[in-house]
Order: sequence, then structure tokens, then C-alpha cells
Amino acid sequence: MKKVVLAYSGGLDTSFCIPYLTLEKDCEVHCFSVNTGGFSDEELEAMESRAMQLGAASFEAVNIEEAFYEKCIKYLIYGNVLRNDTYPLSVSAERVFQAVEVAKYAKEMKADAIAHGSTGAGNDQVRFDLIFSSITPECEIITPIRDNGFARAYEIEYLNKVGLEWSAAKGTYSINQGLWGTSIGGKETLNSRHAIPSEAYPSQLKETDQTSISIGFEEGTLVSLNGEKLAPIQVIKKLNDLAADYAIGRDIHVGDTIIGIKGRVAFEAAAPMIIIKAHQLLEKHTLSKWQSYWKKQLSEWYGMFVHEGQYLEPVMRNIETFLEDTQDKVNGEVFIKLFPHRFELEGIDSPNDLMDVPFGKYGEEQGAWTADDAKGFIKILGNASKIYYHKNKEDQL
Amino acid sequence: MKKVVLAYSGGLDTSFCIPYLTLEKDCEVHCFSVNTGGFSDEELEAMESRAMQLGAASFEAVNIEEAFYEKCIKYLIYGNVLRNDTYPLSVSAERVFQAVEVAKYAKEMKADAIAHGSTGAGNDQVRFDLIFSSITPECEIITPIRDNGFARAYEIEYLNKVGLEWSAAKGTYSINQGLWGTSIGGKETLNSRHAIPSEAYPSQLKETDQTSISIGFEEGTLVSLNGEKLAPIQVIKKLNDLAADYAIGRDIHVGDTIIGIKGRVAFEAAAPMIIIKAHQLLEKHTLSKWQSYWKKQLSEWYGMFVHEGQYLEPVMRNIETFLEDTQDKVNGEVFIKLFPHRFELEGIDSPNDLMDVPFGKYGEEQGAWTADDAKGFIKILGNASKIYYHKNKEDQL
Amino acid sequence: MKKVVLAYSGGLDTSFCIPYLTLEKDCEVHCFSVNTGGFSDEELEAMESRAMQLGAASFEAVNIEEAFYEKCIKYLIYGNVLRNDTYPLSVSAERVFQAVEVAKYAKEMKADAIAHGSTGAGNDQVRFDLIFSSITPECEIITPIRDNGFARAYEIEYLNKVGLEWSAAKGTYSINQGLWGTSIGGKETLNSRHAIPSEAYPSQLKETDQTSISIGFEEGTLVSLNGEKLAPIQVIKKLNDLAADYAIGRDIHVGDTIIGIKGRVAFEAAAPMIIIKAHQLLEKHTLSKWQSYWKKQLSEWYGMFVHEGQYLEPVMRNIETFLEDTQDKVNGEVFIKLFPHRFELEGIDSPNDLMDVPFGKYGEEQGAWTADDAKGFIKILGNASKIYYHKNKEDQL
Amino acid sequence: MKKVVLAYSGGLDTSFCIPYLTLEKDCEVHCFSVNTGGFSDEELEAMESRAMQLGAASFEAVNIEEAFYEKCIKYLIYGNVLRNDTYPLSVSAERVFQAVEVAKYAKEMKADAIAHGSTGAGNDQVRFDLIFSSITPECEIITPIRDNGFARAYEIEYLNKVGLEWSAAKGTYSINQGLWGTSIGGKETLNSRHAIPSEAYPSQLKETDQTSISIGFEEGTLVSLNGEKLAPIQVIKKLNDLAADYAIGRDIHVGDTIIGIKGRVAFEAAAPMIIIKAHQLLEKHTLSKWQSYWKKQLSEWYGMFVHEGQYLEPVMRNIETFLEDTQDKVNGEVFIKLFPHRFELEGIDSPNDLMDVPFGKYGEEQGAWTADDAKGFIKILGNASKIYYHKNKEDQL
Repeated sequence: MKKVVLAYSGGLDTSFCIPYLTLEKDCEVHCFSVNTGGFSDEELEAMESRAMQLGAASFEAVNIEEAFYEKCIKYLIYGNVLRNDTYPLSVSAERVFQAVEVAKYAKEMKADAIAHGSTGAGNDQVRFDLIFSSITPECEIITPIRDNGFARAYEIEYLNKVGLEWSAAKGTYSINQGLWGTSIGGKETLNSRHAIPSEAYPSQLKETDQTSISIGFEEGTLVSLNGEKLAPIQVIKKLNDLAADYAIGRDIHVGDTIIGIKGRVAFEAAAPMIIIKAHQLLEKHTLSKWQSYWKKQLSEWYGMFVHEGQYLEPVMRNIETFLEDTQDKVNGEVFIKLFPHRFELEGIDSPNDLMDVPFGKYGEEQGAWTADDAKGFIKILGNASKIYYHKNKEDQL
Repeated sequence: MKKVVLAYSGGLDTSFCIPYLTLEKDCEVHCFSVNTGGFSDEELEAMESRAMQLGAASFEAVNIEEAFYEKCIKYLIYGNVLRNDTYPLSVSAERVFQAVEVAKYAKEMKADAIAHGSTGAGNDQVRFDLIFSSITPECEIITPIRDNGFARAYEIEYLNKVGLEWSAAKGTYSINQGLWGTSIGGKETLNSRHAIPSEAYPSQLKETDQTSISIGFEEGTLVSLNGEKLAPIQVIKKLNDLAADYAIGRDIHVGDTIIGIKGRVAFEAAAPMIIIKAHQLLEKHTLSKWQSYWKKQLSEWYGMFVHEGQYLEPVMRNIETFLEDTQDKVNGEVFIKLFPHRFELEGIDSPNDLMDVPFGKYGEEQGAWTADDAKGFIKILGNASKIYYHKNKEDQL
Repeated sequence: MKKVVLAYSGGLDTSFCIPYLTLEKDCEVHCFSVNTGGFSDEELEAMESRAMQLGAASFEAVNIEEAFYEKCIKYLIYGNVLRNDTYPLSVSAERVFQAVEVAKYAKEMKADAIAHGSTGAGNDQVRFDLIFSSITPECEIITPIRDNGFARAYEIEYLNKVGLEWSAAKGTYSINQGLWGTSIGGKETLNSRHAIPSEAYPSQLKETDQTSISIGFEEGTLVSLNGEKLAPIQVIKKLNDLAADYAIGRDIHVGDTIIGIKGRVAFEAAAPMIIIKAHQLLEKHTLSKWQSYWKKQLSEWYGMFVHEGQYLEPVMRNIETFLEDTQDKVNGEVFIKLFPHRFELEGIDSPNDLMDVPFGKYGEEQGAWTADDAKGFIKILGNASKIYYHKNKEDQL
Repeated sequence: MKKVVLAYSGGLDTSFCIPYLTLEKDCEVHCFSVNTGGFSDEELEAMESRAMQLGAASFEAVNIEEAFYEKCIKYLIYGNVLRNDTYPLSVSAERVFQAVEVAKYAKEMKADAIAHGSTGAGNDQVRFDLIFSSITPECEIITPIRDNGFARAYEIEYLNKVGLEWSAAKGTYSINQGLWGTSIGGKETLNSRHAIPSEAYPSQLKETDQTSISIGFEEGTLVSLNGEKLAPIQVIKKLNDLAADYAIGRDIHVGDTIIGIKGRVAFEAAAPMIIIKAHQLLEKHTLSKWQSYWKKQLSEWYGMFVHEGQYLEPVMRNIETFLEDTQDKVNGEVFIKLFPHRFELEGIDSPNDLMDVPFGKYGEEQGAWTADDAKGFIKILGNASKIYYHKNKEDQL
């Protein structure tokens, strides 16, 4: 009998896998559920009882919000990561960490195989398999839905047959919720022309009066909300509760997937959007020009590889080290105003603010240099172009 | 008698330069005003009569909106250029092109010198001088304010003395208006903590009902607004009129200046913000993954060098050629909704939309590849990491 | 009966494919041989008669040296492309162009399928298939060796059976010769410790007296050798004849393959190494600092994607356009000395030499700027760091 | 009386500064000599007695080879830094560290000013002043030669007058020797056409029989030569003695200077060239594809900023951290053959060699994946281009 760890989400596909693997494939199915912030305790209990009812050998759930923050979100904040200048990687990042936890659990369980519910059409299969093949190369990977192309109707019928009722009704949108945002796919996102309707977003506008908030950072890390010291995850959750009532952080991500096709998905990510923009503003005041430049290069790559599931490429650890190394001056408070559907960055207060020096105020007369210094600077800064246009006169505009 | 072309803006500093250079420095002062969209005909007439009254030998004004679009804005759109992910280079880009025009005029006039009103504290002196030293190395550069550090009060008194009344009252904010946006500096922007008040922005909210608009692009170039074929500059102006009533496009830019200090300035740029975001969305649908990647790298640099006045570095022409070469598939219509203080991108319609193909729909079952293809893909994609972690077992997470 | 175009190299694998596809798979096999400089006329005649003897429906050979130069080598020179700072892509680039020609021929022939002799272990299968799947998606791809894992002995036996004698003897090294160099793999290259012996290189040292040569470039393109005007391909061939006698251009390439494993291969590329280094030296004298910088970034990528067979990624055309745009000043003559096993770049003579200007001689007193200009330049150049260390005193070294 | 620390090299310019500053400027001159490997004990003694004879208040010499290795050379090796693919920064890197030591000494001495002998024409003034203005902003910078443009003849006459004979004879070449190489400038290097003659290089060919050597690295750091454990600096020195007899490591650097003009200088750097190429080869076997890619990007920048004296830009510390973080697998021995005027890399032996794994041997049949895996991989890898060319048919080659 094959010992299988099943990455269990509680949805139709992975629920179907339990009896299917047990009954048809003679497997001992150990359900493992990795919570990155999307599941409540009630949901987890329901998942467990459903899993056991379906014949699972065991059910285990683990909450990895903290590890997810420490090993990933932290760096996404350091790097101000928005894929294609838009998407905070709300779902893709979580998949990778779920996969890492599943692999660790499979190792611990000395499992023969890991099963997951991905189809052969999307990106999640890549995220899962890439992690498993590096961390648990000794485990077989089993993907019943991908391998057999089972249709939704077939899975429901099968579940009914083994005694679990599953409603045939399907929502218009498929929704994935986690600590770093919620993705919403379906209908309009399958084509290019239309946005999803306002009602399709999980959080609806409840608050119309503007409010002022502040977020505190120490060495680039979230430390407080409105002056109250909080653990980073608490900042994210409290801020999200606050800002979701303003229906902030909605947008649509369009981008290239690792499998070479274009993807389009709506998302709602109130806290991530505010935090990233706040952090970036603080950096504008505290980092040097070339720190910002190179951070951006490396963060762009980091975000791409997390998104694509290439989290284990060794350069990712080096980039994390780089990003962390840039953050020691990113200290201070960022002030933000929330409005319905939007927010404004007001300003910052930082002990490392490079604008706040006794010399060199922008646009003001000052004593740090003379007119002659400025003229000398510009003269020599212009040398290279002057030589070029002297030599290549025909290039003049 | 020295023949001087004065880059004339009509403001206090350059107005002062006319009598000062004529009377104190024995110069023949030819005023040259370069309009990038900031001046109305009335303003230009007022400027001319003031210049002549102050003793200018001649006054000439030229409107370079079209050249400014063709030689710069076009590339800023191709490149989706937002300096520090925020600023569309509303003022910095214009300075460079004003300088180019002034240099050409000085050449044509066979001038001995070029004068401008910059101080020694800011960035404009760099933008002006860098251009002049390459294009007109034969012309002396004269900068009375920078060289003598004249104070505002002294200049006003001097102007009064030569017969021009100039009000001693000074606005709280110094405002620079042009085709690609308006910058607003002063008071709050001199420090880091506060935003400027809503009333300080030139355009106030007039329209509260949302509206839907569309912008058409051909090969990355603006061709229509709401289906009406228009020249690019007309698209910009009409769109700006429309969107300014929604008070869209306000923000604050914080960044590093070419002279090494941090700068902070508020701006209002309704049309630029909408156009750039719309263009970028169309590119997400029509460009390949690596076209987007490399465009971003080169555009970031392009924006930095335009901002810093390093427009004549030869690589800038090569980057423009690259950017233009990426645009032949950037065709189609982008649909946008305007709301008070914000806008939403709805979607696009494009003959080159890479999402719209008979195979490879994201997240849907399809026939372009099999489950085994996907598994083979992931297996080989994972080879490198698999080998790495096999060899370096201690690195496992 | 399936009409198949076979990419025919005359070697064991592709020779085997002719009778195998004809007899076992009921195909009409049209042999197509793409010569990138590796085959002599005699070799081509022998290939043809062998193909026809083995039952090919037709044999066609095409020499694409010129197209290969125009569409690829030219850009490798513009970009000074050495993969991993070592390898001029001697073989990988040629495969891509062979594939392109095969695809075009298959289109012209209205073939049902394209066959090639690649195994499932190496990179050539990727180079071939990637091109075919984009240019001729309507053609099936047939790869008997890859699909069946036929062993060398089996293929020889099969050929003997159908009446063609093929010697069972196998050289120690597998050698691939082309216009842009020759690769040598086998024995030592399968491990990391040893170089291949000197005798394994095709060209042996014949000339021990040093000689001086010169190469002329116009807009980055090869135009002359030792003052004699020649077509680019003739420069390459003549130079290679000359330099091969000095046994110049040998080295070993170690790098990552597209399939994720490390590869190691020896090569001999006398002309490519000299040409690239000469061209790069000319660029150091004629390009600006940032042209060199960005050329290097884009060329690195270009070389990687050519090497990996990702030649059709649309960004490759954009990079080619960029590279070409940087070359208009790369004019002049480069002087080189050849010695046994090595060469020295002496210097250059160019009408666009940026060192040769009446001002700004390096290290010499000159009149282009004063000591005060220099001091002003350095003062303002130092502003940013000065502010940083003032604010963050603990960071001082 | 002004307390001045003079960066003293023992040459004409800085020797002249001692009596000049003492007698004409009423300064107390404290000579400080920073040895990065260029001075022998005898030379230092001669320098001291000359300084004291010329009226210096004190003389102090410090050997910073170790700090220079730890704070700079180490990273140049990690980064395989060759400026413009040629120059190991033999002199420019040393200047920066000399400046850092001088600044620290001035701080310790509570000096009022720092003096150095740079002219206003070259790069060294930038390297010195940039460091001083950040580390010792409280110290005035005094540069008599730059400020007064003193000619060589004047300085000699002055020295003679105060009782020190200085020969008027001047060598054809100005030579700067240090731990990381020797630069040779003059005559031919002032123009573009010719190399300096073989005799002008400090090390002449003495050894004509080839020899085999090996260099050991641990985490990227030099640990042994020919199997003998040695401190990094000892590896460099011993290797240099060995290889200099083969006249290895000669070349000419042509590049852009921070002051905007092109510079050309010959150099001899036997050990640096061998070490960098050996280290890079070891990395090709032990780093992942994208580690190599990003290391190259960041190293290129690092080398440029060291060369230009912008060593204190905060991003430089972040890049160092990144580079160090990539080195933990760069372990092993590199085998090299030395020949007259050149060397060959033979191969490597490393416990982290990614070529040496039980699966995935390049070009060999193996069992890590099947033909179908390979075909699936290529099919999906080709998706993006396939879609692109399907949609944009006119782009086909």
C-alpha cells in the first residue's frame, strides 16, 4: 500500500482525490492542509471531518502564516514587489510555500508519494512539482486530475457515489484567499475586454469617511499600525480589515505565465498595496539612488521567480540576502489617508531621512556649494557628450 | 556688444535679466521663449510686451509641443516612464527640450552667449548647461542669478527702478505647467511629513459622475480618444481637460537629483498617468515576456537620464530606437473608467492580443498540450535545481 | 504516404533515418542539408549519393553562410558575444539557422513532417523543435533516435542490412565544424578535471614567426583584412586560415544548458576570437560609456537566447535593432599581432576615435577645464554620499 | 599653524608639497604613506628620511595589504572583475583604499586639512576627494599642484633650492606598482595606435618551459597554491613571482574615466589575471545559471564604481554582501598551465561540482528523463513564441 501525502485544500478536486486514491489506487491517503491565512478554524474543522469521512488515513493542518511572512512576504515588501507593476503575487507566492510545507511533511512521514489536485492546464502544477522534485526527489508525484483529465461532473458523481454530497452548482468566479490577498478568476477574466463587476470582489465598500493611518517600519519590517506595536502579521491583518472597508486594493493582473500563455486575474489586496507603497516611499527618503536602482532590478527578478515557482533557484537566497542588507536604514513612520477605493501617501517621519539634513535642501539657496562649484560640476559632467558631439558633428540635433 | 540669447520664461528671474544684461553688462538681449504647452497666446503677448519694455533687442516665441511629443513624450509613453514608479517627468523633460530649442536658436542667431535664469541650487541649471555645452560649445553661458546670488527683493527693486512694476507678493507655491503635467513646489514639499493641501492643485474636482472613455493606439502611438481620430497632442489635451475635472493624476514625487540631494515635488498629471497606464496594459496583452522585461530596464534608464538632463548621451538614441522597435504590435483600444480622484482600467481590444488565441486559454482545459507534456516540461525545468540540491544537500529548506 | 523533410547532416543518425523512415514508417524522405561553412563540395556530393542510395526521394543542399552572417554572426560581432566570457557560440548558433532553413524548405515542399536526428539527451533537439513549432506548427516533428533510443550499433547494423557499409569505429571526439568555429566533445570534456590534448584540436601549430595583421570595420561590419576589401565571410575565412596556423582560439566552454544540466565542450575558433576582441577594442574608442554598458547587458542576453535556441523570442529582433543602432560610429582599422597560440591587440585607427580630440587628453595637463571646475565637480558628485554619511554616522568605515 | 596630513608617495609632486606647505603656507606637515604592496622596506626608509629632510613634522607608513585584500580584492575576485573585460583595476582600487587610510589617519591626528599631490587633469583627485568629503568633511582638502598648476621643472627647482637634489631626467613611462598589478602609462598610451614595447613592462620573460600549477579556493577565497596552504596575500605574491617570469598578464586598458574622457593605460597583472580566470572557471562548475547572471550584473557595477572612486555609495556594501553570499559553494582546486606570455585553464576538482552528478551528463544518454519528457518540455517552452507567431503571422522569418 502506497503512503501518500495529499496537499489538501478542501475543494472539489482534492476531496475527490481522497476516495479515488484510496479505492482505485490502493493508497493510504494522509491529508495535509497548509493554511496561509485563508482558512478560519471552522473551515479547517469542516475540512478535517470531510477528509476523514472520505476515507483519509489522517488529517493534519498547519498554519504557516508566520513562516510565510518570514520567508517570503518580508522580501516581497523589501523589494516592493508588484508583478508587472500591478500584482502583489497574492496567490502565487502562497502556493510555493504550501508546496514547501507539504514536501517537509512528506519527508517527515516518509511518504512514498505526494498527491495534489492540479490540472495540466495551469501554473499551480509547476509551482508544486518544481518544489517537490528538488526537496523530495524520492517521492513520486501523483496528480489524478491532471493525469486523467477528470471533469467536474465526474468528480461530483464519484463523491456522491462514495457518500459525500457535493453541490453541482458552481460559482461564477473561483476565489483564492490568503494572507497577501485574494484572487478572483472567471467569466470576464477569460477575455481581455471587461473588468469583473464590483460585486464580484469579496470586500464591499462600507466606509465612506476618509481616515488617516500610519504604518511603522524598523529595518524595513512592519512594526506598528497607528502607533500600536504589533507583529508583522497583525499589522497586515488589522490593516486589511481597516482598508477592505474602503474597498481599496482592487485591480486586474495581466501577465505571462511560466507555461508561456498570457493570464488575466482580478485580485483584491488592500493591505499589500498600502504596505508596499508605504514602504517604497520610506525607501525613497532613506536609500541612496543606486540602492533603489539595484533593489528594483533584483526585486523584479525575485517577484518573477516566486510567481513562476522557481523559488528554489539558488540565486533567490542571494537576492534575499541583498534585499535584507539594504534595509537597515529603512526606519520610520509612513502616513497614509484612506478614501473609498483609494489611498494617498501623505509623507514620512524617519530618523534616517536623507532630505532632512542641514545642507542641500532641494530648490533652496544654500551653502553646501557655490555657483562655481555647480558650474564646474556641470562642465565636467558634460565632457563625454561634448567630446562625442565634437567628434561626430553630424549627430547634432 | 555681446549678442545674447536669453531663455525667457516671463518670470521674475528672466525678466530681471533683460535690463541687467543690457544695462550692466552691455549685452544685446534677444529673448527666446519656448512653449511646451504651458503658455496661452495672451500670456505670450504679455511676455513679449514686457520683454520689449525692459529693453530686449528682440522677442521670439516658438511652440514646440509637436517636437516635444515626437522627440520625447512619445518615448516616455513607449517606455511607460514613471520616475520612481510615480512621476511622469512632467517638468524635467520639458526643460531639456526648451534647452535644445534655445541652443538651436542661438546657433541660428550666431549669438555670442546664451543666458538663463537658473540659480546654483537646483537641477534646471544642469539640464540647460549640459545641452548648451554639447550643442553650442562656442557660446558662453551667462547666468546672472546663479553667479551673483541675487535675491528676489533685489530683483524686484531693480525692475521697479527701470520702470517695470513687479508685485512683491509671492505665492506659497511655485507652479510649472506644461503639456506633460504641472509641478507644484513649496511649503510642505520642502519637508517630508505632509502632502500639499487639495486646494494647492491647479485642477479642482468638478465632476463626480463616473464616465467611460477609450484611448486608441497604433504602434504604441496615441491615435484616438473615445473613437475620434486625433493627433497625439490633441488626445493629450482633450483627455487632460476631461480627466482634470475628476482631479485625477495628483501625487508627490520624491527622488534623487543629479546634484546628489533628495528632492520632493507635488504634481498633477491627469492625462499622462492615464495614458501611461493604458499603454502599459495594452503592452501586457501584445508584447512577449522578455520584451516587457527589457523594455522596463531600458525605459527606467531612459527616464532617469531625461530627468537628469543627460538627454544627449548617445545611448539615449539607441534606447529610443529599441523602444520604437518594440511597438509595432501595440495596437488597439484601451477602455478606462474615470471616477473622482482615480481611474480604473477596464480592458482592451486589440488585433494583436496574445490572450485571444484558439489554444492556450489560461486556467481552462485545452488541447494545446497534454498532461504528459506538462509533466515533462516541469521535470526538465526542474533539472538544474534538482541537481543543485542533490549536490548541496545541506541547503534544503 | 507521409512527405517528410529530413534535416540531413550525413552522419550516422540522419543516414539511418532515411531507410528507417522509408521502410518502417512508409515515408517519402526528402533530405535537406544546410551548410553553414562546415562542408566542402566533395563532402556534399558524397552526402547526396549516400542519401539517394539509402532511398531518399530527393536531396537538396543549401549554403547559408551569407544569411548566417547577416542574420546572426553580424549581431554576435556587434555584441562581442562570448558566452560565459569564453565561447563564441560556434555550434549552437548554427543549429538555429539550420533549423530555420529546414523549416522554410518544409513549408515550400508542403511537407507533412520534419525529421531530425537529435537524441533526447542534448540541446540540439531544443534548438530544432523550438524553431519548427513556431515556423511550421502544421508539420509533425519526427525524431526516430530520440523516440526509440536507438543505439549506435543498432543503427550501423540496420544500415549494413539495407546495403550501406558503415564503419563501427568511432572517433574519440565528436567534432562539429562551421563558419564560426569548431566544437570538439568527448572523453575529457565529459568530466571537469582535464583539457583535451593539443592533438585533438583540428588545427595544429604550423607557424611560429609572429605576424602583424589588421582588420577593417565599417559601422561595426567586417570590411577588410590587411587593407584588402573583402566581403565579411571572406574576412572570416581568410583570417581563420591565417590564424589557425598559429593554433589560436582554443578554449573550453563550461556552461548551463537549456535543459538544466552543466555542459563542457572544447572549441577552436581562431577568427571569431580575434574578430570579437578587435571589434570590442574599436568600440572602446568610439562608443560612449553607457552605450558600452547597455550593449553588454543586451548582448549577454542575446547570446544566451541564441545559445539556448530561443532565437524566435520577439525581443531578439528588438535587441538586434538596438545593437545595429549602436554601430554607426564603429569605423576604423584594428591592428593585431599573431603569435603561436595567442594574439595581441596593438591599437586602432578610427575617424571616430573619442581619444583623439584637441581637449581632454587623459592624464595630461590641458585647457578644457580648470582646477576649480574639477573641485566643483567632485564636491557635487560627492553630495549624496556626504549626506548619507552625515545622517548615518555609524556607517563610517 | 595648520595641521596637515599629506598623502605621501615619495614622488616629485608630494615631495615638493612638504617644503611648499611648510614654508609658503605655514603648515605643519605630517607625511602619511599607505603601502598596498608597491613599496619595499628600503624604499620606505628612503621616503622617511627624504620627508624629514624636507621639513615634515612627522612621517608614518602603514601597510594595508591585508585590509586591501579583505575590503576590496576579495570582492574583485568574487566578482571576477575585469573592467571593460580587460582590466583588473590594478591601480584604481588601491587609490581608494589609500584615501580611506589617509582619512582615518587625519581623523586620529585631528588634522585641520588633508593634502595630496593630484593634478586637476586626472582621476586620482576624484578618488581622493570623494573619500575625504564623506569620511572627513571637517578637513579642508589642499592640493597645491592642482590649484597652482605647478610644472615639473618648477617643482624640481624649488626642491633644489630647499636643499634636495632631484634629477630632472624623467622616465618615458610613469609606473604604479601595487598588490593587484602594475600600470604603465606614457608615450604610446597617449594615443590609440600602438602598444608599448615589450621592454617597457616591468617583468621580462625568463622562463620558457611550461609548468602546471593549481590554486585552491574555499568559499571563493584563495587558500592554497600548488597544494600549499597560504594566506590569500601570500597566494597572490607567490603566484605573481611565478607567473611574472612567464611575462603573463600584460594588456592595455581603454576605457571611460569618471571625468568623461577616454583613458588608455598598459598594465601587467600576472596573478590577478590567473586568479580571476581560475575563480570564474570554478564558479561555472558550482554556481547556478542565474547566480552567474546576476553576479555578473552586480560585479560589473561594483568594478565601475571602485574604478571611479565611488566606493562609498551605500549600494557597494549591499553588492559586497550579495557577492559574499554567492560564494559558499565555490570550493575546490583549479588546475592551470603556464606558458610564455599566456596560461591555459585545464580543469577543476570540486566537491560542489554540478557536472559531477549521477544523472544528467551532458550529451550522453541517461535516465533522468525520457524522450517524451524532453518533447513535453520543448513543446511548452515553445508556447509563447508559437502563440506570438500564430497571432502575428507576418513576422515569420
